Amino acid sequence: MPAVIKSLHMAREYIRSCVREGDSVIDATAGNGHDTLFLAHQVGDKGKVFSFDLQKEAIERTGQLLENKRMIHRVVLIQDSHERMPDYVVGPVSAIMFNLGYLPGGDRKVITYPEPTVSALSSGLMMLRPKGIITVTIYTGHAGGIEESNAILSFCAGLNQDQFTALHYRIINQVNDPPSLVVIEKIH
Amino acid sequence: MPAVIKSLHMAREYIRSCVREGDSVIDATAGNGHDTLFLAHQVGDKGKVFSFDLQKEAIERTGQLLENKRMIHRVVLIQDSHERMPDYVVGPVSAIMFNLGYLPGGDRKVITYPEPTVSALSSGLMMLRPKGIITVTIYTGHAGGIEESNAILSFCAGLNQDQFTALHYRIINQVNDPPSLVVIEKIH
Repeated sequence: MPAVIKSLHMAREYIRSCVREGDSVIDATAGNGHDTLFLAHQVGDKGKVFSFDLQKEAIERTGQLLENKRMIHRVVLIQDSHERMPDYVVGPVSAIMFNLGYLPGGDRKVITYPEPTVSALSSGLMMLRPKGIITVTIYTGHAGGIEESNAILSFCAGLNQDQFTALHYRIINQVNDPPSLVVIEKIH
Repeated sequence: MPAVIKSLHMAREYIRSCVREGDSVIDATAGNGHDTLFLAHQVGDKGKVFSFDLQKEAIERTGQLLENKRMIHRVVLIQDSHERMPDYVVGPVSAIMFNLGYLPGGDRKVITYPEPTVSALSSGLMMLRPKGIITVTIYTGHAGGIEESNAILSFCAGLNQDQFTALHYRIINQVNDPPSLVVIEKIH
């Protein structure tokens, strides 16, 4: 690997090191569907990706992308808040990806907010199998971004270190507020 | 790899990904010699580790350890400030390791201070070959540790992003102030 990798790519490196064929995983923020497609590649034909988004547009785009790539059968699309993940997904998952902020190319007024995000993270932690991970790609460049970042980091700092390891990975010398990455691993 | 690795181990992961046999490298803080020994393994019989420490005790311990492991011929021990690295090492190096704070088991009054550390970092950046890296393991649990950490992060945040990429890697939910890790990569 190159020594230092941008946070966006690191999220996928961590997912690759953790997810196996046949796993169930969650894309908590479908957006344009790129992470859902990436996850569908990882879990293979016997696995399943549960892909959430509040916005109809995001669900449609994700469905279209996965159909084009002939992987839609590996995906369950759910137009609802990721706070309600436990209502749709039964049993342990090996990974959950969050990519926060507004839908690229979409309505910038519909962004993620701290409280539901932290609530969804909290629910997500209970759904992980041992050694399972949550990755959270955090943007601070948009309105409310710094507050959301602080809320997530505070929540993670409070996680019991006997149960979880929480990592913050951040490129610190870039202009234009690049995203940072949080990775939470369930220890047992 | 396990998904999330402690910062201490990550420094060595980055070094492994970067250093090749035959390289010249620097241990900027010899301490008890553990990083010097690790680096001596990486560079092989044709490489060289330049190992610095202000304290005679540290240089002696490091020399003893490397002799015991029959690798002393791969090492140059230098009892001087790492600010003066450019006076002793000619030509590009592929990696420089800093492990800050006081000498384990040594005199706790002799710690590293922000100004010389930042000055040594600045010198070190000029000595790197393209794609070479500096790792800095930063402790905040001792007196002056937080000030030193802030000084290093400020310095790194100001590095030109066209020349260097600076990463901050930090486990955020541990008690007892575990170290964090900074990695700086020279791009060209």
